[in-house]
Amino acid sequence: MPEPLVYAFDHDHPEPPMARKDLLGGKGANLAEMTSVLGLPVPPGFTITTEACRAALAGGWPDGLALQVDEHVDRLERTMGRTLGAGDDPLLVSVRSGAKFSMPGMMDTILNLGLNDDSVEALARATDDERFALDSYRRFIQMYGKIVLGVPGEEFDRRFEGARDLAGAATDHEVPPEVLSLVIDRFKAVVEDHTGEAFPQEPAAQLRGAIDAVFRSWQSPRAVTYRRREHLPDDLGTAVNVQAMVFGNRDDESGTGVGFTRDPATGDQGSFGDFLVNAQGEDVVAGIRATQPLHEMGERWPDLYDELQRIFEALERHYRDMCDTEFTVEQGKLWMLQTRVGKRTGRAALRLAVSMVDDPAIELTHAEAIQRVSADHLDQVLHPQFEQVDHTVLTKGLAASPGAAVGKVYFDADEAVEAAHDGEDVILVRQETSPEDVHGMEVAQGVLTSRGGLVSHAAVVARGWGKPAVCGAEQIVVGEDHFRVGDTVVRKGDVVSIDGTTGEVVLGAMHLTRGETPDEFDTVLAWADEARGDGLGVRANADNAEDAARARDNGAEGIGLCRTEHMFLGDRLPVVRRMILAATPDDEDEALEELRRVQREDFEGILAAMDGLPVTVRLLDPPLHEFLPDVEELAVKDARVGLSDEEAELLAAARSWEEANPMLGTRGVRLGVLKDGLYRMQVRALLEAAARRRAAGGRPIVEIMIPLVVAEAELALARSWVEEELAGAAGEGVAEGDVRIGTMIETPRAALCADEIANQADFFSFGTNDLTQMTFGFSRDDVEGRLMERYLERGLLAGDPFDSIDRDGVGGLVGLAVERARSVKPDLKMGVCGEHGGDPASIALFHRLGLDYVSCSPFRVPIARLEAARSVLAARAGD
Amino acid sequence: MPEPLVYAFDHDHPEPPMARKDLLGGKGANLAEMTSVLGLPVPPGFTITTEACRAALAGGWPDGLALQVDEHVDRLERTMGRTLGAGDDPLLVSVRSGAKFSMPGMMDTILNLGLNDDSVEALARATDDERFALDSYRRFIQMYGKIVLGVPGEEFDRRFEGARDLAGAATDHEVPPEVLSLVIDRFKAVVEDHTGEAFPQEPAAQLRGAIDAVFRSWQSPRAVTYRRREHLPDDLGTAVNVQAMVFGNRDDESGTGVGFTRDPATGDQGSFGDFLVNAQGEDVVAGIRATQPLHEMGERWPDLYDELQRIFEALERHYRDMCDTEFTVEQGKLWMLQTRVGKRTGRAALRLAVSMVDDPAIELTHAEAIQRVSADHLDQVLHPQFEQVDHTVLTKGLAASPGAAVGKVYFDADEAVEAAHDGEDVILVRQETSPEDVHGMEVAQGVLTSRGGLVSHAAVVARGWGKPAVCGAEQIVVGEDHFRVGDTVVRKGDVVSIDGTTGEVVLGAMHLTRGETPDEFDTVLAWADEARGDGLGVRANADNAEDAARARDNGAEGIGLCRTEHMFLGDRLPVVRRMILAATPDDEDEALEELRRVQREDFEGILAAMDGLPVTVRLLDPPLHEFLPDVEELAVKDARVGLSDEEAELLAAARSWEEANPMLGTRGVRLGVLKDGLYRMQVRALLEAAARRRAAGGRPIVEIMIPLVVAEAELALARSWVEEELAGAAGEGVAEGDVRIGTMIETPRAALCADEIANQADFFSFGTNDLTQMTFGFSRDDVEGRLMERYLERGLLAGDPFDSIDRDGVGGLVGLAVERARSVKPDLKMGVCGEHGGDPASIALFHRLGLDYVSCSPFRVPIARLEAARSVLAARAGD
Repeated sequence: MPEPLVYAFDHDHPEPPMARKDLLGGKGANLAEMTSVLGLPVPPGFTITTEACRAALAGGWPDGLALQVDEHVDRLERTMGRTLGAGDDPLLVSVRSGAKFSMPGMMDTILNLGLNDDSVEALARATDDERFALDSYRRFIQMYGKIVLGVPGEEFDRRFEGARDLAGAATDHEVPPEVLSLVIDRFKAVVEDHTGEAFPQEPAAQLRGAIDAVFRSWQSPRAVTYRRREHLPDDLGTAVNVQAMVFGNRDDESGTGVGFTRDPATGDQGSFGDFLVNAQGEDVVAGIRATQPLHEMGERWPDLYDELQRIFEALERHYRDMCDTEFTVEQGKLWMLQTRVGKRTGRAALRLAVSMVDDPAIELTHAEAIQRVSADHLDQVLHPQFEQVDHTVLTKGLAASPGAAVGKVYFDADEAVEAAHDGEDVILVRQETSPEDVHGMEVAQGVLTSRGGLVSHAAVVARGWGKPAVCGAEQIVVGEDHFRVGDTVVRKGDVVSIDGTTGEVVLGAMHLTRGETPDEFDTVLAWADEARGDGLGVRANADNAEDAARARDNGAEGIGLCRTEHMFLGDRLPVVRRMILAATPDDEDEALEELRRVQREDFEGILAAMDGLPVTVRLLDPPLHEFLPDVEELAVKDARVGLSDEEAELLAAARSWEEANPMLGTRGVRLGVLKDGLYRMQVRALLEAAARRRAAGGRPIVEIMIPLVVAEAELALARSWVEEELAGAAGEGVAEGDVRIGTMIETPRAALCADEIANQADFFSFGTNDLTQMTFGFSRDDVEGRLMERYLERGLLAGDPFDSIDRDGVGGLVGLAVERARSVKPDLKMGVCGEHGGDPASIALFHRLGLDYVSCSPFRVPIARLEAARSVLAARAGD
Repeated sequence: MPEPLVYAFDHDHPEPPMARKDLLGGKGANLAEMTSVLGLPVPPGFTITTEACRAALAGGWPDGLALQVDEHVDRLERTMGRTLGAGDDPLLVSVRSGAKFSMPGMMDTILNLGLNDDSVEALARATDDERFALDSYRRFIQMYGKIVLGVPGEEFDRRFEGARDLAGAATDHEVPPEVLSLVIDRFKAVVEDHTGEAFPQEPAAQLRGAIDAVFRSWQSPRAVTYRRREHLPDDLGTAVNVQAMVFGNRDDESGTGVGFTRDPATGDQGSFGDFLVNAQGEDVVAGIRATQPLHEMGERWPDLYDELQRIFEALERHYRDMCDTEFTVEQGKLWMLQTRVGKRTGRAALRLAVSMVDDPAIELTHAEAIQRVSADHLDQVLHPQFEQVDHTVLTKGLAASPGAAVGKVYFDADEAVEAAHDGEDVILVRQETSPEDVHGMEVAQGVLTSRGGLVSHAAVVARGWGKPAVCGAEQIVVGEDHFRVGDTVVRKGDVVSIDGTTGEVVLGAMHLTRGETPDEFDTVLAWADEARGDGLGVRANADNAEDAARARDNGAEGIGLCRTEHMFLGDRLPVVRRMILAATPDDEDEALEELRRVQREDFEGILAAMDGLPVTVRLLDPPLHEFLPDVEELAVKDARVGLSDEEAELLAAARSWEEANPMLGTRGVRLGVLKDGLYRMQVRALLEAAARRRAAGGRPIVEIMIPLVVAEAELALARSWVEEELAGAAGEGVAEGDVRIGTMIETPRAALCADEIANQADFFSFGTNDLTQMTFGFSRDDVEGRLMERYLERGLLAGDPFDSIDRDGVGGLVGLAVERARSVKPDLKMGVCGEHGGDPASIALFHRLGLDYVSCSPFRVPIARLEAARSVLAARAGD
């Protein structure tokens, strides 16, 4: 016998309904769970399965579906003692879509199905409320016409507006019955005009049309786009729920409400919600009437309130989680319309997770508690956010570095520093930032730029410092002492608020949440570390001692990427330029010596902060022209006022190092090959720092990492430099095992030839940013923004591959590299240091591919610890 | 019993010596072949195997080697009836290296080994020529000292110069015995100074030292570099040949010569060579005395000459090829010193291949004949070359487009056009070229630039047109009406010659070979096509009707890449700019309409030229800023003199389309996604052109190719545009099967996801240029030149991956893509259209990977046909 295509909510399910979510959809499974397992008062009804939907979409209604629907309608009529859309007290039903995953892109609810020209009169009589009956019919035609019959909603809206105006009614409720009758006639005519057929009067035909519309809504462009964006499969189909209507707006012994079993904002014990007397669900949501807090229901209807509390307790015990419910009271009888596990804030998620471990009715395991907290939850508690939900957004830019900030705008780094010294909170506003603005960024509460993408200087530096930033806010025109958005002018000293989590810019000062972590934060992370064990390590990307210390505080188990280019900026920039411009080898050596001395201090500080933990240092990576001034700027200055000798020299050097595609040019180990003195200098500085740490009783663990390798011979050459320096003076005082030599895997060729390259490497670190750029041929600087938006909009990519690693392409390449490398060196240590190291979905993939650790910004270390634990748990569950 | 480590030339080899080249080396195998198989008069000797060399390099002389060498010396002494370096008529030997492959980087010959203070006197007595004996000894010490003992050659050269001066001798031969005695004493002292030991007098010790030196020479830096460059394996080792000396300078009945069995320059029948009476081999090479043509030997020594001719015939019959020989006559006795298959010019290679098929003594098969002709041979006959070998090179640039040209230099495209109209031959000289110089390049005999690499505008355009070009000649400073190289000034109208095959620039007019193909060219290519069958197709890259016609003449079986960007240049550029600057959709449409009309004509011409054959058209690929002026130039102009409104608008547009890494930016299908009107316009123009060809009775086969795809959804979207246009007005008159839709595979991701992308494709074309750029992270514009040179010099890469495809990385990725695509569509047609399509080694790899065709410049089509045939034959032989 084939599986049924329709299940009643109270059907004797062969397994718990929630285990059959894929067949019944989330909503249907929850309704069946409440009805058949918990025995709660749920208006009866039935669910048409996702399988029926799939079959119907493929080739029309499957055999038996029409018959089974009819049988279930009959049964429903018998249970209710009423007839669908007929008789003295006609049965009305709602029809709702319900897929396995919640999908806002799909069909809305259709209410009051069963009303027609006859049953509307019966309803009026039965409820003794003509206006209510007519208005219900009016709403039904409008909803059904729009959703099922495809009449543009505007056709109804416009006419009802007119009727309300005509009746001089301030709200829908005030439109009198006689006008509603006219509206109904007009609506039916509109339907006939558009469809060529009269509005269906037959309840069975209405139902069949509504079910079909739900099926079709699975394929609607909005639903398809939503699935693309959320990476949901296209072949699941949706279930359809048909349920007897109950009316909270029948009289003053009726009402409706929404309730949470605990406070979803704080996680506090005790139910939480709103209710409205004599109202329907949409009235609560629409906000036309002021709702009452749920506890006041206890005063009005103490018995019903107690019943609801008992139901809440039962739900929590059953779902072992905080639940979100919708309920209706009809003439003194409580009905549960819907339940699901409730959404919550980050703070609540942490508190709920911890308190439910201790709750004897729930007894969550630590593993379960970890699964209840997501990266977004942690993000919320880690960074300040706007407290007010309602606010007027002046303009939006890219969400470049999370967190919100408030301050007076300054347009110049020096002025920003001055203002900050005077105790002002500062937002630094620039068209874009450069290394020369860094001191201004350092003192600012947040950074706002009008140009540049998610990898612009401003964005990268701000993220590194955990400072809020909104970048590339293109509507902003930045002047010398003001900026302009359309007609609005914001002058130096004016206050703005920015939210780097959403990209919003707001005029004036918003209240901010504090961004302090609740006590439960550490508890949950400790459980996460316990669960993670040695399954997947978490390191941080940090370039200086301060960041290294912060990373360690946040639980990092080492540094996965210490970029050395920041050691070439600021007050070192003139020395770096001297090195580049050096006319003789002696001049070059002198500049290198000077750099070596300062870099040694830098390294010593970092090694001290990470004592006993590995510190992976990447030798200089960016192309040299990044340390030289802009060619066009100098050329224009030359044309305008002429250049000094030094400037002319800088211009010539900048021209000679200028490249057509710097991303694919002379950088990384290629620089080392052209100027091996530069790399040797860095190695010497590192070894000397390690020796000093040893001498001071420390335990330095240095991993020297060569960037942009494409071939084994390159790494062999770079390795020989390090080994020569180790054998020389710089290596004195360095203990056996203090130094390992490895490489970034960040070009597709390095990944493809990972077996050869592994011969020369003590470790690998995947640089998935560059690997993504080269695998896609996407320059982040160029494609982020207009092009990427268009691609995501049109569903050409499943997601932005710089946010979350591209599973099939880049991920496949990483997998292939891991496999090839391990075929040569089974124990080779491999990690990832691209920004993907802080992204939940990417972390899970890296774990599946067999990497040993991820490395991310110090500020994302807690999130990575949590996600790593979740990956390990998920993998274990999959075993 | 272990294999012997030493083989006498007349050893009874278990298989033909030439089959054991890997053991005996090329020279040793040929000597054994002549001795033991052909029974020719070869001075006796023996070969120490490559295996002995490998063992010696790994851990000193292997067991038994010393003994076996001793035994073979004994045998040699018995055969000759003389003793090595002793007795009245001392036996002397030569010691030569000889690897499996000819390797100029290795040890030179050591002659006269066995001479010492005693045997030199015996030699003087035996030959009755004291000067000869002393000079032989002097040369021996000098050679041995330098090569075996590592004394700097300059130490000897300087002193011998002094002695010659002292003796007032014009040539070495005139230095009298008494001075030679002094020189010998001095040389021995020099050796002792440098090595701390006396010059070895013991012949056995001399021999051992020489053998060791040959072994070591395998590892010399020059040899290692040579092997790297020629992609030869490092682990073969070299053989060592020890051979009894014979003296062509003993008396007037002695002599020496080199002879070819046919003319190596023309391939003409009849022997060819030079000889010298009373001389040693080096005298022939040194050019101190004028040699006599070989046929004059017939007058002097008719019997010996006849014997030599019979030997030549035997060699040709045996080797089935033209041979190159060295011989010596000692006191009326002819000795063959060496033979090998002779090097030849392209013209000779063709003639020899064809004539040896007809030669009853040789009877080459067609397959063998094809293997005798290489790509270099065809290149030589296809392009003019300098006729004179001796010429003074003014400067060298990159060999950007093959062939030589002579003309008057012009520095401006308009002036070049004028001069060409007046009938002058023109060489266009520019710092670099841009689309605005194209009309000047068109009329020029050749192009010379001082900047830009092998993918600069000048290089790419010149190669496409088959026009000689030397690019990036960095020593040249280009002025307005002259150029300068150091102190040399070349003014407008002065004549220069350039050779785009070598990169040479010569002052004045060189004579050029005509670059006409001999009759045998077509014969050999017809055989190649026959051998190739349908094993590997050959198409051409052609962008206009003229090139398409030329490609077809050259045997192309279709167009594998028709770039459409050239259709946007020249007089279309203003229209293209109007499209880019368009303020309204209408303005944009109008510009697109105008472009559609002209492109339709372009396409019609190309389809007509390739009627009945597939034409693969790539929709617009380059980023839009390539059609806009240079930002810096305009910005400087703005600063200097201000801009017109139009220029200001162009500057703004150029800025908005400017990209940090254009190679990885908004180009290819990404442009289509942003501006689908552009792609649709091209598709319409193409479909209309196809319909017109149909209406005219033609048979158009259009393959529409989408560039830079990274994901299936991109291709699906582009496919939908084409299909919509096909279903619309533009598709009327296009027959079923006239149009196929496919994609370039040129990003690593497209290769990795080839199985998904194949779902949307009727064909694939691998763009190995871009694939190489992205797989390595090498921007050709940036890494070719300084960086690539350094990489090749240091052996970091086996070769320039843009010349010949990188087998492991990029090749591996192509292989993976082929496999994945065929797993979904076993019959998917796949080809390659990068410049590798014309490279011999790459063609062989593409064939092995299972591609269906290669596509290359029209001028390389014959070469590709030949190489494709060779690949097919090689694969068949490997079966």
